[in-house]
Amino acid sequence: MGTTQLETVPEPKYWHLRTVLSEALDSEFSVGEILPNERELAARFGVARATLRQALEQLELEGRLQRRRGVGTTVAPPRMGVAVGSERQVWPGASGDDWQATDCALTVPSPAVALMLEAGEGEQVHTVRRSRVSHGQPVAADLLHIPASSVPELSAIDSPTGSSRARAVLRELQRLDLDGQDRAVELGSARADDARELDRLPGAPVLVVTTRFFAQGRTAAVSVATYRADTCRLTFGAEGAVEIHDAPRRQAS
Amino acid sequence: MGTTQLETVPEPKYWHLRTVLSEALDSEFSVGEILPNERELAARFGVARATLRQALEQLELEGRLQRRRGVGTTVAPPRMGVAVGSERQVWPGASGDDWQATDCALTVPSPAVALMLEAGEGEQVHTVRRSRVSHGQPVAADLLHIPASSVPELSAIDSPTGSSRARAVLRELQRLDLDGQDRAVELGSARADDARELDRLPGAPVLVVTTRFFAQGRTAAVSVATYRADTCRLTFGAEGAVEIHDAPRRQAS
Repeated sequence: MGTTQLETVPEPKYWHLRTVLSEALDSEFSVGEILPNERELAARFGVARATLRQALEQLELEGRLQRRRGVGTTVAPPRMGVAVGSERQVWPGASGDDWQATDCALTVPSPAVALMLEAGEGEQVHTVRRSRVSHGQPVAADLLHIPASSVPELSAIDSPTGSSRARAVLRELQRLDLDGQDRAVELGSARADDARELDRLPGAPVLVVTTRFFAQGRTAAVSVATYRADTCRLTFGAEGAVEIHDAPRRQAS
Repeated sequence: MGTTQLETVPEPKYWHLRTVLSEALDSEFSVGEILPNERELAARFGVARATLRQALEQLELEGRLQRRRGVGTTVAPPRMGVAVGSERQVWPGASGDDWQATDCALTVPSPAVALMLEAGEGEQVHTVRRSRVSHGQPVAADLLHIPASSVPELSAIDSPTGSSRARAVLRELQRLDLDGQDRAVELGSARADDARELDRLPGAPVLVVTTRFFAQGRTAAVSVATYRADTCRLTFGAEGAVEIHDAPRRQAS
């Protein structure tokens, strides 16, 4: 890295610095390498710490850098492609599903989810907690909300919570004919429980994927899945479509 | 808003403050309303300015708050649902397309795009700039990259740039049989040119949608579209599927 002075550049300083840093990452750093500390970087580029931090935050948003407590700022590996949508429309828990159901509880969903499910105010629904691992790393945490009306034959004998209950609820759900599903993707920040599961801090940027499952002319279940935005690229496409590849980046030797 | 002291709470202070603020937004504020300034808010909640800023940043990530220069922090309206994927597979520029082609130029694409297009290093491709408006607001800016091999009959007579050239390139592209397409969605930060078009600052969080269009057994075009992450929720689903609705929020009176 050079010692370019950024004082005279007309575009925002942090933006110019981001571009300079990004080029330095391409040419001088390897994946996994630890960057010099903030004080040192700020001095080298002749910018205030606040400007440097803005530029680092942007490169973190873009998935170029990772900041980890106790480690510092490292050069991130390319994001993983994680398949979210496909032409195959299946119920959660069907064979070939990428998710692991870990728990189940009766909860009152958020007002937004209650509205989609046409659940009354304060009405409890079965909430199955699921997690998804890809390439050995946790990539997503999910809450799947299922009103009692979607699983009318669910036995009341079992424990109302736990992973075996989760599997029982999913089994019952699969008895319905799935008419279709749709999805929405938006930016969010990780809730404390999801953050713990995803090995992130509460409030870390996440991609929130909301899926509605339709059966019998209504929304029979709603999944709200939280994907790590730093490590994941969500892919949507034809079954078996090739993953979009990154430009090759140098690997740490 | 109360004056809750957050000193004794075990979870991160900014996260707890975010939750408290989020509840206050629901119960005490209307869409469009301006929040008290940072100094005032920090004093009320008994937190440091840095903690307050972290909490405000999170609520901004979640689309609950908008920060605008010269205006301050306001309560954001619910995000717009913007349809991105559908079962209908069509070329860009086909009738019913949501995009406006504004310009065209020969450019050298990024290494990632060049790889997808199997373009040689330094090879120029036609790059059509497009913009998308929804509900009267700019929601996305797009660069559509088309190698010369995808539009072999393109006349060399026209001007190599401008909106009429863009339309000519899209017209030629539509002569190919579209075999399919796939998409990837990831978090990014707005480049300076996109930011200007989207009325944001460079580096603002955006959702980057990369679409590959397949024809004749290869990738015939690649679109890299940048959607405002603050105002947009991207929807994917069956043709004509109902948009996912937010819980009702109070409107400014």
